[in-house]
Amino acid sequence: MSIKLLLTGGTIDKTYNESNGELHFVETHIPEILELGRNRSDIDIQQLLLKDSLDMTASDRQSIADACTNAKQDQILITHGTDTIVDSGKSIAALGLENKTIVLIGAMIPYVFKHSDAVFNLGFALGALQALQPGVYITMNGKIFNWDNVIKNREIGEFQTL
Amino acid sequence: MSIKLLLTGGTIDKTYNESNGELHFVETHIPEILELGRNRSDIDIQQLLLKDSLDMTASDRQSIADACTNAKQDQILITHGTDTIVDSGKSIAALGLENKTIVLIGAMIPYVFKHSDAVFNLGFALGALQALQPGVYITMNGKIFNWDNVIKNREIGEFQTL
Amino acid sequence: MSIKLLLTGGTIDKTYNESNGELHFVETHIPEILELGRNRSDIDIQQLLLKDSLDMTASDRQSIADACTNAKQDQILITHGTDTIVDSGKSIAALGLENKTIVLIGAMIPYVFKHSDAVFNLGFALGALQALQPGVYITMNGKIFNWDNVIKNREIGEFQTL
Amino acid sequence: MSIKLLLTGGTIDKTYNESNGELHFVETHIPEILELGRNRSDIDIQQLLLKDSLDMTASDRQSIADACTNAKQDQILITHGTDTIVDSGKSIAALGLENKTIVLIGAMIPYVFKHSDAVFNLGFALGALQALQPGVYITMNGKIFNWDNVIKNREIGEFQTL
Repeated sequence: MSIKLLLTGGTIDKTYNESNGELHFVETHIPEILELGRNRSDIDIQQLLLKDSLDMTASDRQSIADACTNAKQDQILITHGTDTIVDSGKSIAALGLENKTIVLIGAMIPYVFKHSDAVFNLGFALGALQALQPGVYITMNGKIFNWDNVIKNREIGEFQTL
Repeated sequence: MSIKLLLTGGTIDKTYNESNGELHFVETHIPEILELGRNRSDIDIQQLLLKDSLDMTASDRQSIADACTNAKQDQILITHGTDTIVDSGKSIAALGLENKTIVLIGAMIPYVFKHSDAVFNLGFALGALQALQPGVYITMNGKIFNWDNVIKNREIGEFQTL
Repeated sequence: MSIKLLLTGGTIDKTYNESNGELHFVETHIPEILELGRNRSDIDIQQLLLKDSLDMTASDRQSIADACTNAKQDQILITHGTDTIVDSGKSIAALGLENKTIVLIGAMIPYVFKHSDAVFNLGFALGALQALQPGVYITMNGKIFNWDNVIKNREIGEFQTL
Repeated sequence: MSIKLLLTGGTIDKTYNESNGELHFVETHIPEILELGRNRSDIDIQQLLLKDSLDMTASDRQSIADACTNAKQDQILITHGTDTIVDSGKSIAALGLENKTIVLIGAMIPYVFKHSDAVFNLGFALGALQALQPGVYITMNGKIFNWDNVIKNREIGEFQTL
């Protein structure tokens, strides 16, 4: 049994742009996290995008949906920006992929920061993914949320049930 | 639904002893990892021991068994040294706690090292714990193992199915 | 013999703003770096500003000049944004403080990033400061520059002699 | 003007041995630290040994002495275990290399630990080395010590003047 890991970007994969002091995307850090975690699960990584989720277009979301539909694996993990991760969860649930377990995750602080939640979050998501029943979930803050029972509380920067 | 987190020590919680250049136990780093992961699951931490698992006595193992039996929570996570984690899994399974999900984890490299697998492992275990059916499991290397189908391959430093 | 450490902000002290994904100032990390370096030199820290050096006003520069003039210590270290560090070096040199050794430093990557040059740079500057003859210097990239013989090469993100 | 950097090992370069849970030497981390510090000084690295300084032999000390004598550079930095760094400083001073500035450094905590003083110490030593008059020095704890006026206070793990 293997896992499909779809990368779309989001805060987790941003890094520092020395020329202007802002954050941007250069390349994904997800393989580095899996190596740190000494992961030996069979994971097939596919990079769809490297974008802030506020910048995702309809075409981007379609490519995520297509990748979920076409994946031969029944366990799918998606890295995603937290701002629209709930929206993407909803649109993926609408695909009605009954045999698949799909988990979306992100991070509040990019991996490249010392105090990032990225490593914990990716570990958590992979653990949940391999144990959950088919369905669409978002895992953040050490919790597993059903796609239709979660919001990002922007004031405190946490995910909560409705 | 809340989680019981039993600490017994193991490599994950060792730190550097400046006076002799060896590794030893001072205090647990597990709360620090949970904070790094911005965990908001309700976790009740109980420190039973802080020992290398090769130094555990029969009395130590009894205290772990008692804590599992007496925990009011149905989800129990146990941090443990990797050298005898499989033995402890077996003895906990023998308790026949039918309604409880119990996950044992450790790390190959202490949390205090830059390249430690501790943060990933603790995240993974917490994700798996909250999704697994009742039973006794060991999670390492990004995989979920049943207690009776896992060994530590010391030559390569990885956990594998039998 | 003690050291005056004047903080003005700059990249070295920026941290992540979770609410908008940008970098901003909250509080200085310099004491944390000194503790990491197990520093036991007598250092008197005075925070003048916490600003991007592109946002410094004439009034800000005057406060730096005043602090240099008024410091009772003969060794002064100043943390500063790299974009105008050369300008500040020039204006401090113009004060003609003949008995004082003054070193300005910054970082290309904030301390809060895993791959930051902040710790190395602060260590380097403190080592140079305690050994240099009176004068005004900028230390970056493992080099000691006289204030009047250095530019920031923005294309490659390095400091060089003229 | 370039720098000779002689590596002898010491705590700074120890790493974790997964097979027995102890610390040992595999390869030096010094180039990694220089890269982290974005060093652009011209440094010629020569690895003489990778040893705990308590294990150094007379032959090892002779190789350090020879390397100092034969170096064509006038600025020499030596990484060294802290337990006998003062002894090596004395034997190097006895060489009477009048035109050379020689700085010995180590670390109390190996580079591979999150809370290591290695990066700060190496930066500090390089800054001091490039500014000091000829002589033999030990730099630790953010201070520059003359070779004949320093001891390691083992009780508190700090270097102090006599």
